[in-house]
Amino acid sequence: MGSAEDVVVANKKVLLKHFIPSGAPKETDMELVTTGTIRLRVPEGSTALILKNLYLSCDPYMRSRMTKHEDGSYVDDFVPGEPIAGFGVGKVVDSSHPGFKIGDYAWGMTGWEEYSLITDPKLLFKIHHTEVPLSYYTGILGMPGLTAYAGFYDICSPKEGERVFISAASGAVGQLVGQFAKQLGCYVVGSAGSDEKVNLLKTKFGFDEAFNYKKEPDLTKTLKRYFPDGIDIYFENVGGSMLEAVLYNMRLKGRIAACGMISQYNLEIPEGVRNLFLIIGKRIRMEGFLVFDHYGSYLEFEEKVVQLIKEEKIKYVEDIVEGLENAPVALVGLFEGRNVGKQLVAVAHE
Amino acid sequence: MGSAEDVVVANKKVLLKHFIPSGAPKETDMELVTTGTIRLRVPEGSTALILKNLYLSCDPYMRSRMTKHEDGSYVDDFVPGEPIAGFGVGKVVDSSHPGFKIGDYAWGMTGWEEYSLITDPKLLFKIHHTEVPLSYYTGILGMPGLTAYAGFYDICSPKEGERVFISAASGAVGQLVGQFAKQLGCYVVGSAGSDEKVNLLKTKFGFDEAFNYKKEPDLTKTLKRYFPDGIDIYFENVGGSMLEAVLYNMRLKGRIAACGMISQYNLEIPEGVRNLFLIIGKRIRMEGFLVFDHYGSYLEFEEKVVQLIKEEKIKYVEDIVEGLENAPVALVGLFEGRNVGKQLVAVAHE
Repeated sequence: MGSAEDVVVANKKVLLKHFIPSGAPKETDMELVTTGTIRLRVPEGSTALILKNLYLSCDPYMRSRMTKHEDGSYVDDFVPGEPIAGFGVGKVVDSSHPGFKIGDYAWGMTGWEEYSLITDPKLLFKIHHTEVPLSYYTGILGMPGLTAYAGFYDICSPKEGERVFISAASGAVGQLVGQFAKQLGCYVVGSAGSDEKVNLLKTKFGFDEAFNYKKEPDLTKTLKRYFPDGIDIYFENVGGSMLEAVLYNMRLKGRIAACGMISQYNLEIPEGVRNLFLIIGKRIRMEGFLVFDHYGSYLEFEEKVVQLIKEEKIKYVEDIVEGLENAPVALVGLFEGRNVGKQLVAVAHE
Repeated sequence: MGSAEDVVVANKKVLLKHFIPSGAPKETDMELVTTGTIRLRVPEGSTALILKNLYLSCDPYMRSRMTKHEDGSYVDDFVPGEPIAGFGVGKVVDSSHPGFKIGDYAWGMTGWEEYSLITDPKLLFKIHHTEVPLSYYTGILGMPGLTAYAGFYDICSPKEGERVFISAASGAVGQLVGQFAKQLGCYVVGSAGSDEKVNLLKTKFGFDEAFNYKKEPDLTKTLKRYFPDGIDIYFENVGGSMLEAVLYNMRLKGRIAACGMISQYNLEIPEGVRNLFLIIGKRIRMEGFLVFDHYGSYLEFEEKVVQLIKEEKIKYVEDIVEGLENAPVALVGLFEGRNVGKQLVAVAHE
């Protein structure tokens, strides 16, 4: 194990200025602070490590952390005035934790800053494969990838030949769910918010069909067109009126894996779903899940998906913004659907 | 096997006059016809039987059959001008079906009339226990009983000590679910629509707590009061705003068995449920079910529950209306919550 230089360096950060009770986050809700510094050596007697942040992930669930929850939430609220927290990939520059040594790469919960002192490294996973792009560990090989894997295989109970619909399908999770479903021999349709994304789904990710939901005046009819015999599995990323349209089109004993409801996160009053009675007659199972419950499958998942990547049996598209100073615009763009593929921020490449 | 007298007798019927697109059913939507007759012998060469109807069941799902479904439904729509169909208990007065002989008692799908020709006896179950009241086979020993049994044990995945909430809890299904849950050592709270019903839940059925939802201005707060640590299992019979309030109060990994949504059946525009995003963070499983999928468990269920009745380990309350001519008012009353306990109609007692 090497020893870190005991130096103090500049450490730019992106802070959340204040909680956002409702509405879409704006760039002005965040602030770039360039005056901070950090000592690149872990405190004596700690089991901490210092991570040089390389890639930071923009994920829909982060919206929830920008709102103050009086009763708590499944993840901690952000702390106004502190750096935004999120998943990222970094290089260990000092460590007193037995699981990590200087030079290791890791992914997990870190801060929106150049260097982070990680006092609780159990929220980090060691990266075992540096022969694939490290940025993949914010997506296909990280939290969104495991979300897709666990959500599809564990929650959807999929069978060969079943009819699968995925919303927000070109996003970090959706594009993988669709490819897992195709590998299993399912019929797969995805929705997305631009023709460019729709094109990507059909040409790059091998979806059987895809449509731009913004161009469809009646989603119930649209789904009927793509699923004349109904939907067996819905991988839910958006919620609201799309969920209502899906319920009308579900088949008997269909399954809905509720992964996210991004269409609702910024609304002051969320849309109501009016046809839930259909889950009775159709015997539908709808189940929410969080990737945190599936971390135990991570190593198995990492090996399997690295192999698929090497064999070019799985495709992956990233939308990389360069520079920590552009992180706020990237996050804001995610909620406007501006990204094409997995949204991430490159803070440094090495 | 005896032989039936070849006689023709009068056969009063209750018809559905027309489909009811929305709103509550009214007595004037039905008609008592007293001019019909029936020959009490099955047709030559058939495998039919003739049932003398003793008890007819009024059940919430019947509302759905009064609406015309262009795309079909999980049960057939009623046929305007024909007798209403429903669950009932009867005595076999002629049979050419090998499974039934004259004098047998049976329960299952029959007609709202004095005698029914049952051409498809696979929808009938033979009654094995005439030492308990025959009317029980419209409720605790029939479809609602099996609904409660399968819904609670198979769909709710209950564990000892869990916190269980049941809506429409004094109804045919709810009163049994609550008692099954108490037998398992759960904490059980029920809601109902009158103080009389609430009293019944607490004094007769042994619920830990019960409340009159009509007297509660804020159901979310009401549930918080009865479940300060949240709800593990919700047995859903009503839907709408109650479901919304429940979702706010569910615990992590809670389960919702969706059995019915009676509050929504008569609404032209059902209420929307606006907080479904909670099922993600709380990892809630919500599952619809129909008793028809659980008929394979019926014999096991019948033996178990007959035993519980004989040992007085289970309580049961019926609301019996006398006479076929009063069947429409009984059914209408069900949707107004006028019944106390299982609503049924006695056409004849033997």
